[in-house]
Amino acid sequence: MVTRMVDLRSDTVTKPTEAMRAAMATAEVDDDVLGADPTAFRLESEVANIMGKEAGLFVPSGTMGNLISVLVHCDIRGSEVILGDNSHIHIYENGGISTIGGVHPRPVKNNEDGTMDINSIEAAIRDPRGELVYPTTRLICLENSHANSGGRCLSVAYTDRVGELATKHGLKLHIDGARIFNASVALGVPVHRLVRAADSVSVCLSKGLGAPVGSVIVGSKSFITKARRLRKTLGGGMRQVGFICAAAFVALQENVGKLEGDHKKAKVLAEGLNQIKGLRVDVAAVQTNIIYFDIVEGSKLTAEKLYKNLEEHGVLVMPEGPARMRIVLHHQISSSDVQYTLSCFQQALTGVHEENAN
Amino acid sequence: MVTRMVDLRSDTVTKPTEAMRAAMATAEVDDDVLGADPTAFRLESEVANIMGKEAGLFVPSGTMGNLISVLVHCDIRGSEVILGDNSHIHIYENGGISTIGGVHPRPVKNNEDGTMDINSIEAAIRDPRGELVYPTTRLICLENSHANSGGRCLSVAYTDRVGELATKHGLKLHIDGARIFNASVALGVPVHRLVRAADSVSVCLSKGLGAPVGSVIVGSKSFITKARRLRKTLGGGMRQVGFICAAAFVALQENVGKLEGDHKKAKVLAEGLNQIKGLRVDVAAVQTNIIYFDIVEGSKLTAEKLYKNLEEHGVLVMPEGPARMRIVLHHQISSSDVQYTLSCFQQALTGVHEENAN
Amino acid sequence: MVTRMVDLRSDTVTKPTEAMRAAMATAEVDDDVLGADPTAFRLESEVANIMGKEAGLFVPSGTMGNLISVLVHCDIRGSEVILGDNSHIHIYENGGISTIGGVHPRPVKNNEDGTMDINSIEAAIRDPRGELVYPTTRLICLENSHANSGGRCLSVAYTDRVGELATKHGLKLHIDGARIFNASVALGVPVHRLVRAADSVSVCLSKGLGAPVGSVIVGSKSFITKARRLRKTLGGGMRQVGFICAAAFVALQENVGKLEGDHKKAKVLAEGLNQIKGLRVDVAAVQTNIIYFDIVEGSKLTAEKLYKNLEEHGVLVMPEGPARMRIVLHHQISSSDVQYTLSCFQQALTGVHEENAN
Amino acid sequence: MVTRMVDLRSDTVTKPTEAMRAAMATAEVDDDVLGADPTAFRLESEVANIMGKEAGLFVPSGTMGNLISVLVHCDIRGSEVILGDNSHIHIYENGGISTIGGVHPRPVKNNEDGTMDINSIEAAIRDPRGELVYPTTRLICLENSHANSGGRCLSVAYTDRVGELATKHGLKLHIDGARIFNASVALGVPVHRLVRAADSVSVCLSKGLGAPVGSVIVGSKSFITKARRLRKTLGGGMRQVGFICAAAFVALQENVGKLEGDHKKAKVLAEGLNQIKGLRVDVAAVQTNIIYFDIVEGSKLTAEKLYKNLEEHGVLVMPEGPARMRIVLHHQISSSDVQYTLSCFQQALTGVHEENAN
Repeated sequence: MVTRMVDLRSDTVTKPTEAMRAAMATAEVDDDVLGADPTAFRLESEVANIMGKEAGLFVPSGTMGNLISVLVHCDIRGSEVILGDNSHIHIYENGGISTIGGVHPRPVKNNEDGTMDINSIEAAIRDPRGELVYPTTRLICLENSHANSGGRCLSVAYTDRVGELATKHGLKLHIDGARIFNASVALGVPVHRLVRAADSVSVCLSKGLGAPVGSVIVGSKSFITKARRLRKTLGGGMRQVGFICAAAFVALQENVGKLEGDHKKAKVLAEGLNQIKGLRVDVAAVQTNIIYFDIVEGSKLTAEKLYKNLEEHGVLVMPEGPARMRIVLHHQISSSDVQYTLSCFQQALTGVHEENAN
Repeated sequence: MVTRMVDLRSDTVTKPTEAMRAAMATAEVDDDVLGADPTAFRLESEVANIMGKEAGLFVPSGTMGNLISVLVHCDIRGSEVILGDNSHIHIYENGGISTIGGVHPRPVKNNEDGTMDINSIEAAIRDPRGELVYPTTRLICLENSHANSGGRCLSVAYTDRVGELATKHGLKLHIDGARIFNASVALGVPVHRLVRAADSVSVCLSKGLGAPVGSVIVGSKSFITKARRLRKTLGGGMRQVGFICAAAFVALQENVGKLEGDHKKAKVLAEGLNQIKGLRVDVAAVQTNIIYFDIVEGSKLTAEKLYKNLEEHGVLVMPEGPARMRIVLHHQISSSDVQYTLSCFQQALTGVHEENAN
Repeated sequence: MVTRMVDLRSDTVTKPTEAMRAAMATAEVDDDVLGADPTAFRLESEVANIMGKEAGLFVPSGTMGNLISVLVHCDIRGSEVILGDNSHIHIYENGGISTIGGVHPRPVKNNEDGTMDINSIEAAIRDPRGELVYPTTRLICLENSHANSGGRCLSVAYTDRVGELATKHGLKLHIDGARIFNASVALGVPVHRLVRAADSVSVCLSKGLGAPVGSVIVGSKSFITKARRLRKTLGGGMRQVGFICAAAFVALQENVGKLEGDHKKAKVLAEGLNQIKGLRVDVAAVQTNIIYFDIVEGSKLTAEKLYKNLEEHGVLVMPEGPARMRIVLHHQISSSDVQYTLSCFQQALTGVHEENAN
Repeated sequence: MVTRMVDLRSDTVTKPTEAMRAAMATAEVDDDVLGADPTAFRLESEVANIMGKEAGLFVPSGTMGNLISVLVHCDIRGSEVILGDNSHIHIYENGGISTIGGVHPRPVKNNEDGTMDINSIEAAIRDPRGELVYPTTRLICLENSHANSGGRCLSVAYTDRVGELATKHGLKLHIDGARIFNASVALGVPVHRLVRAADSVSVCLSKGLGAPVGSVIVGSKSFITKARRLRKTLGGGMRQVGFICAAAFVALQENVGKLEGDHKKAKVLAEGLNQIKGLRVDVAAVQTNIIYFDIVEGSKLTAEKLYKNLEEHGVLVMPEGPARMRIVLHHQISSSDVQYTLSCFQQALTGVHEENAN
């Protein structure tokens, strides 16, 4: 019987806190589709303010936040978007920008650190006055922190350079900021500075910040006006949505300050895993709350068996391929959970149980 | 200063009850995108069970419920859907089935009672083996109760006949059941019987039932499997969605029984309005909770002025054109509110204040 | 054995003339995708000039002409087009504007004469600043002559009024002018006058004009620039297309003058058919080269048998339903063919062979 | 004044031969939209036969051939196609598969020889039963010869391996065979053997084969049935299309045998250019009729000036970037043209005129 549960599959698995539940129980709500919910409005304004943008819009998920943002910037048929070939939008969002939005993706190689080479981006840009056989580039997308590169962060300098490139070519810049607060904390830069060059940002409140549901997209007023209409088209307009927003507001207040701790625990966990025979972790790459690691050849266990063994001890991780796994830290993982996790890995791979994992 | 507020614009404006708030405060939740939220699962099962279908899926809105249903049934490029020319999907959902889904609508004239002639439907059906210039009909949509026809109900007999037609031609039948419980109550027919012929139904919990947010679509397991994937594509997958589902579950338990009262109050209100000089209501058409009425020519007030006058007294109605208005009853409108509303109309249009408006 | 063939199924079945073949054999051609084919350029300029528009573009078919026109005018996601519920675009073009273009059609009832009521059009217009649940109307489509109404013509006055309405609401007006020359001849109005209010017109050269292949769309220079790019996207850009254009140019010179004769023969044929027991033709409705007629109940033959009987005598007509047929006149149908056709109908339906069918 | 014109921009610029013109002048034609044109049918059958497939369909362009093929194989919403990141479909066809077809492209890196690594293809495949966030892979596209890799050829062995992979995963394989005859000739393999693993092939007749217009797609009967309907939707159905097909038929008979000569001339030209100071050509990469070459740094002329200088002497080449050019050989380039071209390059870059350029 599992007596302890350490869920490291994602930072989306957090359970709402008492404060969030209390906020929901007392939230003032109204019909947001009629534009009347004060709690939704307060959350949208707050996030817009934090991000340094004119306006915000609550959406049910990060996927919808990115989908709406790309489709608003690419609202003319024949649009192309430049994005990382390893980006969340390209790999993990059902290809929705094409299959639902008819936008043509032009993936550019993501470097290990989540950047794309500036020259490669520029070479991929295509102009509406150009060849008759070209779609028209209208948008560049960045992702910060970059999940598939292990949560690494794009710097202000890099982001600004991409912004300059976008401006030079008359393009828009969208940042998939599902974990932009993690990046901000890791870089020690205010989040509004980090996204200054962006025309829109999608921010998840239900990942590291621990809200039960929702994301907010921010941008100019005219962007948000179009986004609101498209949200309705997609069916993302919700009635008394203020309940959810109330919890998300608490998440914003409670948990930004905890992200640094998540990052520290991730570092400890990464270092610990790397010392276990049979695992290999690029510790230097762990900048925020995500750890990717490999089961080396000749290890005692296959990934599948390891995964199962851990599950029996209540430790849940995310398989990412035949010999690769992912762990994501969040505010409901304690230092003790980290030690317990290391202990379970140790035992599974070496048969030796670490003591004192409380 | 407005001392009393009677919001009759829609049944979406209801405020959550204490029981709903309590249910939210104590709901057991988990990550529903990972398929783990027990409260979402319970609601989906319950609604599926009530509707007599295999499975259900919670979605953020009725619009998404309809959009997903149409797109799942019409998942092959070149599909056409037959639907009422006065239906909610055709008129009030941003044309999303085309602009997002690429499905071609073939509207058939809605009669005054919300039906389409069976012969007209059959004449509109087009076969994939047919003319090279035809799209392929894959779906028929009904709406019950039918909002734009004043909330009138489609009978079991009619629905079954359309179902037989669909079966005969190898088509699917979807029912936009945003207010299917109203129809069920008004007709005195169990809701599962009313939708027996349908392959899918979209049911709103945030309309007459008073839930803060959400709809459920029901159908076969394979339909719901496809719907779940498409919900993710659209960005309608939510993490700890159980909170919302918990409130919706309460709505289902608390408020179905109140619908009959809503319909009675609607009748009283309709009859009262019809006796006011300057208004004309087709009282016989008021079968459920919706009333459409006209300001007759030569009336003392234009619609605009009437609308404003009422608003000053806290009575909110929905303008529907230069001389047409809509009222929707719901469980938070009391008999007293009905009398007060009549009184305000009376005064506005005749200058005489009705007594006894408590 | 069939010794004579009278193909009345459509005006698309004409065989190219010797002059057309000669023009093809000697046409000067070049790579039109590189913008270099002089014969394509000449045809496009000529048609644009005749239609009183700035520029033209050759396309492989009327369907592509309409598809490109609608998509260029509705190039922003979320667009709606108002068009006749009995129009060629809505019924006979595979729903391509939705299934390929994502444009939402808002059909308005076609009157018997092919018009839509001006008030009905205006009532259907929806503004981008309007309700959040509305798509945005960007285009009105007319069809002149209107095939499904038996080739009846829209007048200059009507077309101008629709144009004024479009202008008032900031919409574009497209005319499906597959048979605009038939309308021009029947109305006695220069074709450029007839389409003056239109932002774009699609003109078929392979229908009444007898060219083997092709249509031309005309409009402003900026419209044609966008259309050229979209033609490439659809795969309608062709290399040494000048051959086809050379034949089409001959069609334009040779056959406009013959349309009046087609209309006269259509009238003779319609009157003759109407006098045959078992057929009913609305002779007054035959304004151009199209005749619809019904097999009355109690007729000697079903439509199917009649169709077959005629085919055995080399007379081909188009079935349009269980008791309805269509005939289309063109320049390769002689007065003698008309008499022969009447004779075959007479014999099939009454058993009496008309004399004098040369 | 230019006295000689050597157009090396593409093999699409060829002028029709006398035999083609004669074939057009005498072609038997009929309405192909009604399925009646014998000359179209003959061409389609002939190409299908040569390619070893059941059926064929004439289309106005290679772009439409690829577009239809991808859309037919990916006819279910949510489809993904794996294709080369440097392929013609991904780069030069307006992104039509997404912007018109809503198909999500998953580009895999093209190696220098036009292949994609088998492992990379397999790693990119995504299953409909897989993660909820994945689109479903339904198609792999190859291109043979591969234009952007300088016309290099995919071997039978490679193509078969990709075919096996497709079969293993239940995917379809489409080959963009715009220049498949060039590949067949260069590899010394019958063309039907080269495409045996493919479910569909798009073959251009207006490139190296010199037809004025058109391509043919081939595949199974059911594929072609769907393709024919989609061709109509796109507006690619043409009436008396037999004229064009007659010329294309001649191209097929006359010019396949000349491709080997084109390849030899390309080799001579590549070697000659490589010996000119200031140019660099990867001569080994020139396997068919395409040559890419670079203007080396420190060259006497920039690409732009070189381009202009050559044009003044009647030699047209295609600029491909700031210091890169493309040349394509075809049957209307003689050995003397090759020498003249070399001479013009020589003079432009070194100021020394080669003798003997006849």
